[in-house]
Amino acid sequence: MGKTFRVSVPATTANIGPGFDCLGAALTRYNVFTFAPLAAGSALIVDVAGPDGDLITTDATNLAYVAFQEFFQHLGKPTPAVHLHIELDVPLARGLGSSSTAIIGGLLGANAIAGAPLDPAALAELATAIEGHPDNVVPALLGGCRLATVDGRGTPVICPITWHSDIVPIVAVPAFEIATATARKVLPSHYSRSDAVYTLGHLGLLLQGLATGNGDWLRTAIGDRIHEPYRKALISGYDAVTAAAQTAGAYGVTISGAGPTLLALGSPERAEAIAQAMQRAWQQSGVDVVAAQPLAIDHQGAIVTAID
Amino acid sequence: MGKTFRVSVPATTANIGPGFDCLGAALTRYNVFTFAPLAAGSALIVDVAGPDGDLITTDATNLAYVAFQEFFQHLGKPTPAVHLHIELDVPLARGLGSSSTAIIGGLLGANAIAGAPLDPAALAELATAIEGHPDNVVPALLGGCRLATVDGRGTPVICPITWHSDIVPIVAVPAFEIATATARKVLPSHYSRSDAVYTLGHLGLLLQGLATGNGDWLRTAIGDRIHEPYRKALISGYDAVTAAAQTAGAYGVTISGAGPTLLALGSPERAEAIAQAMQRAWQQSGVDVVAAQPLAIDHQGAIVTAID
Repeated sequence: MGKTFRVSVPATTANIGPGFDCLGAALTRYNVFTFAPLAAGSALIVDVAGPDGDLITTDATNLAYVAFQEFFQHLGKPTPAVHLHIELDVPLARGLGSSSTAIIGGLLGANAIAGAPLDPAALAELATAIEGHPDNVVPALLGGCRLATVDGRGTPVICPITWHSDIVPIVAVPAFEIATATARKVLPSHYSRSDAVYTLGHLGLLLQGLATGNGDWLRTAIGDRIHEPYRKALISGYDAVTAAAQTAGAYGVTISGAGPTLLALGSPERAEAIAQAMQRAWQQSGVDVVAAQPLAIDHQGAIVTAID
Repeated sequence: MGKTFRVSVPATTANIGPGFDCLGAALTRYNVFTFAPLAAGSALIVDVAGPDGDLITTDATNLAYVAFQEFFQHLGKPTPAVHLHIELDVPLARGLGSSSTAIIGGLLGANAIAGAPLDPAALAELATAIEGHPDNVVPALLGGCRLATVDGRGTPVICPITWHSDIVPIVAVPAFEIATATARKVLPSHYSRSDAVYTLGHLGLLLQGLATGNGDWLRTAIGDRIHEPYRKALISGYDAVTAAAQTAGAYGVTISGAGPTLLALGSPERAEAIAQAMQRAWQQSGVDVVAAQPLAIDHQGAIVTAID
């Protein structure tokens, strides 16, 4: 029987305003996936601990296990029997990359059990193929803030984005869910040239603001015309929470991934007050809040540890 | 009678692939505008030296004079009588920002004569209003590579973009013109979400490639889906010239501004060979070439000198 491997995978916030489907950053909350090999022919075991654990399937449709299987199919090898234990800390279906933690967890667990045949670039490519877009899986794998696009042949190209330590990501997580598919359906299929140009300019300004810590640039940059204007209607209390965050000193507020979590960017001095203001505003809008807290950028990405 | 002022304004290359209508860089070729005050009531004098000089109007429709007038209208003051002398070195209507040199030249000449009441931010705003978009006028005024966008109230926000000294801008200028209005007409009014996202990701990668000098990133990043796929058909020899540049070692080739000038990015070692390859390919396609040369990024922007 082989070793047991534990894979810790960070939460991620994708889009960050104008970086729709290409920009994401890893945050300091983690789901942990432990893969213990079982005797050949044993039935799959999946068990889950932590909040939202009852929402996770524990059969072969479990997303981390699906990714685990995909890895071995990709190698052309049979999937080994495994006991998968999941410790959840990233809220589910809230726009914090919980599905990407499962995909990265499954792929890295499989890669470890298989003797690490795939390098990070190949793992990123496989994860993007499973997830459909790179903006959560890439930072979940590699850590930090990452931009991901494709070259003319569709091959992923990933580059690191500098995130100044004076810019604190603050998340406020409400007690309702938005399925990513629902959040995609409200987006238009086409955009005017002026909305495209507006968002391009804002992305450029965002990257310079993140790199330099210039809050004034971030204040302007965070606005986009690709997703936020369409998705905010899905989020009860959006206007009140964003206004409260800004009043408390946030440089900007945007929907984290497909939502409903709202991401604020603020200074270290104002971060705690911004989190509290967002929580209060949501509660006053009649929405319960699961978490409202300053986090930090995770710079390590997913970590695999062998345990015996 | 007041002093005479000489305003030197750099050429600019706008868009740089995915930075459509928001990104531009100043290049080391200059038009020079000299404003000599005349006695009150004197008729306007405009004279022009240099290639393409016969294409420039020398009455009140001269663009530098139009900008000069706009400045005084903006201040609510009468336009003083002036003798405007223009020394042209930036090819006209070729996508190298010749009209922006005229707008910046006219505004800075007027500002100097008026005792410099406007600061650079106000001048940038006025120039953008005259030109209609900021991507040439801003670097022509300030120098360097600049990203310009607008905030929620439409106020311009400008930030500097780092351009690594190992990345050489190479321009090849054919002997035909494309009017900017024609180049705008071929663009679609709307873009698919995937084309918008593709271009967003490429802009992010371009900015990281320019900042770090990573040629591999630039190779992917330079491709956009907003303008180049539509405008290249207006440029006879486009495919041959871009292929020749790439074969000679260019990281990427894109249309400079609205064209027809093509901008290549390459290493200092390959820059001269890239310029020659572009010139040969255009000539072999039956197109005369006005200039094909490595330039550098101008970091000073427009310079005003008082002369007596």
